[in-house]
Amino acid sequence: MAIIESVPNISEGRNLDAVRHITDALRRVPGVRILDVQSDAAHHRSVLTLAGDREPLKQAILRLYEESLASIDMRVHQGAHPRLGAVDVCPFIPIEGATMTDCVDLAREVGSEIAARFNLPVYLYEDAASTSARRNLEDVRRGEFEGLAAKMQHPHWTPDFGPTTPHASGGATVIGARMPLIAYNINLATDRLDVAKEIAAAIRMSSGGFRFVKAMGITLDGRGIVQVSMNLTHYEKTPIFRVFEVVKREAARYGVNVLESEIVGLVPSAALMQAAAYYLQLEGFSGNQILENRLRSSE
Amino acid sequence: MAIIESVPNISEGRNLDAVRHITDALRRVPGVRILDVQSDAAHHRSVLTLAGDREPLKQAILRLYEESLASIDMRVHQGAHPRLGAVDVCPFIPIEGATMTDCVDLAREVGSEIAARFNLPVYLYEDAASTSARRNLEDVRRGEFEGLAAKMQHPHWTPDFGPTTPHASGGATVIGARMPLIAYNINLATDRLDVAKEIAAAIRMSSGGFRFVKAMGITLDGRGIVQVSMNLTHYEKTPIFRVFEVVKREAARYGVNVLESEIVGLVPSAALMQAAAYYLQLEGFSGNQILENRLRSSE
Repeated sequence: MAIIESVPNISEGRNLDAVRHITDALRRVPGVRILDVQSDAAHHRSVLTLAGDREPLKQAILRLYEESLASIDMRVHQGAHPRLGAVDVCPFIPIEGATMTDCVDLAREVGSEIAARFNLPVYLYEDAASTSARRNLEDVRRGEFEGLAAKMQHPHWTPDFGPTTPHASGGATVIGARMPLIAYNINLATDRLDVAKEIAAAIRMSSGGFRFVKAMGITLDGRGIVQVSMNLTHYEKTPIFRVFEVVKREAARYGVNVLESEIVGLVPSAALMQAAAYYLQLEGFSGNQILENRLRSSE
Repeated sequence: MAIIESVPNISEGRNLDAVRHITDALRRVPGVRILDVQSDAAHHRSVLTLAGDREPLKQAILRLYEESLASIDMRVHQGAHPRLGAVDVCPFIPIEGATMTDCVDLAREVGSEIAARFNLPVYLYEDAASTSARRNLEDVRRGEFEGLAAKMQHPHWTPDFGPTTPHASGGATVIGARMPLIAYNINLATDRLDVAKEIAAAIRMSSGGFRFVKAMGITLDGRGIVQVSMNLTHYEKTPIFRVFEVVKREAARYGVNVLESEIVGLVPSAALMQAAAYYLQLEGFSGNQILENRLRSSE
């Protein structure tokens, strides 16, 4: 059995009964688990985390669009977060027994079916994008729901699937495939914010660091220490252990020790296996040697 | 769902059709997976590795006894490996969502049922042992099948379940609960066997080292290097990373580097998670943050 994760963001974060109505519908799809639901009233947006094998997940996502399009009207939607439609964005993420290619295929298949079934314009983003101009979600979403009709008149923004005009109440949707994001923080045994900021600058892509690291230095109020707060956006290519070792090394240059690190929220087990194999200098180790994986693989 | 492993050893390693007949019967038990089967002709013995939730595993083990007792006759059995009966030994091992106490309970339940159903004497060993004199498998098995009838006449060796005389063709069986065993080797960048032997002596329990380490130093023929070859018998109490760090430290005392390490066969994912958390100095991390675990836990 493969495990694929999906993190759809819907434009409803205030009417919690409406959100519950949607999640209840998803719970009735066999083989899919809802791992998390976060609703934000200021953003007027909810982020759902689902996981399951390809087919059940596809069925759940189709249900999600059906329910969300029925209950969310973008013409009256106001919120702090940028958005293009009722189901604003829907990424597929390979977790176990599935590759990025599988997730790209799934994104295209789901996108095609949603466009046909709900007459909704669909843009593909990230690894599923049809052109590099559509890789970045912010570019696709620029202009938001209110600017969508005008934006779509430009041939450059013909959707990947579906009609060339917005869905009246649902706008458009952005479907894609990406790696799981790991929220990873390293706490330093110092109160020097400048050190945390210097290290964050050294390791994040935007200022010359690792390709798949976003980072900032912050003070942890009440604890008298600082933190390098990060998002790791592709742990296979920029692994946790390498980031940790570089932060430790950079901190030493200021005479500062690493106090501890923390993972916020969920992490794929492979990201930690990778760290174990690195530090233990494990040669020839395969995920197939992990007892639980062996048990769950198909015969 | 809990995952419990069982590694029954049966006294048949030559007639591979007979072994296949037994494993085929086990494959028909829903909810149980056969992870491995190793038959050894010199030992005239096969080692099966099964895993599943408590009830399916129990059903599979009952089937294993039924089939093995029907096809194996200890009165004509000869082999290099010490053995007491047709199903010689059957440990239960907690892997995920199950504790050692669960496995001890399961061992007793299975032992009681097997004794009643097949009129077979059952001894409990390791964590399931009723007295410390029965903890060690070698003590229970001493005298082997040929000496069993005489041994059982001594009140000290009244079985935990079942009759006080051997089963005519099946002898007796030893059922228990223990931690998973990890076969772990560390290769040193030297050809000095004395260094590997010194380090092995330093870390194994029998000569003053860690409580749950068995170790020896050997030469890897053809590679010109030596190896500290180990069994880690309780990774929660004597974790891999601590053993690795001490071996690295001891090797440095001889000016020798660790070249690599290797895990032979299967390892529970928790043993590697432990290493990742140690080296990354992860604070407040819980197995519940591992995406795959979250997906598989009951709601």
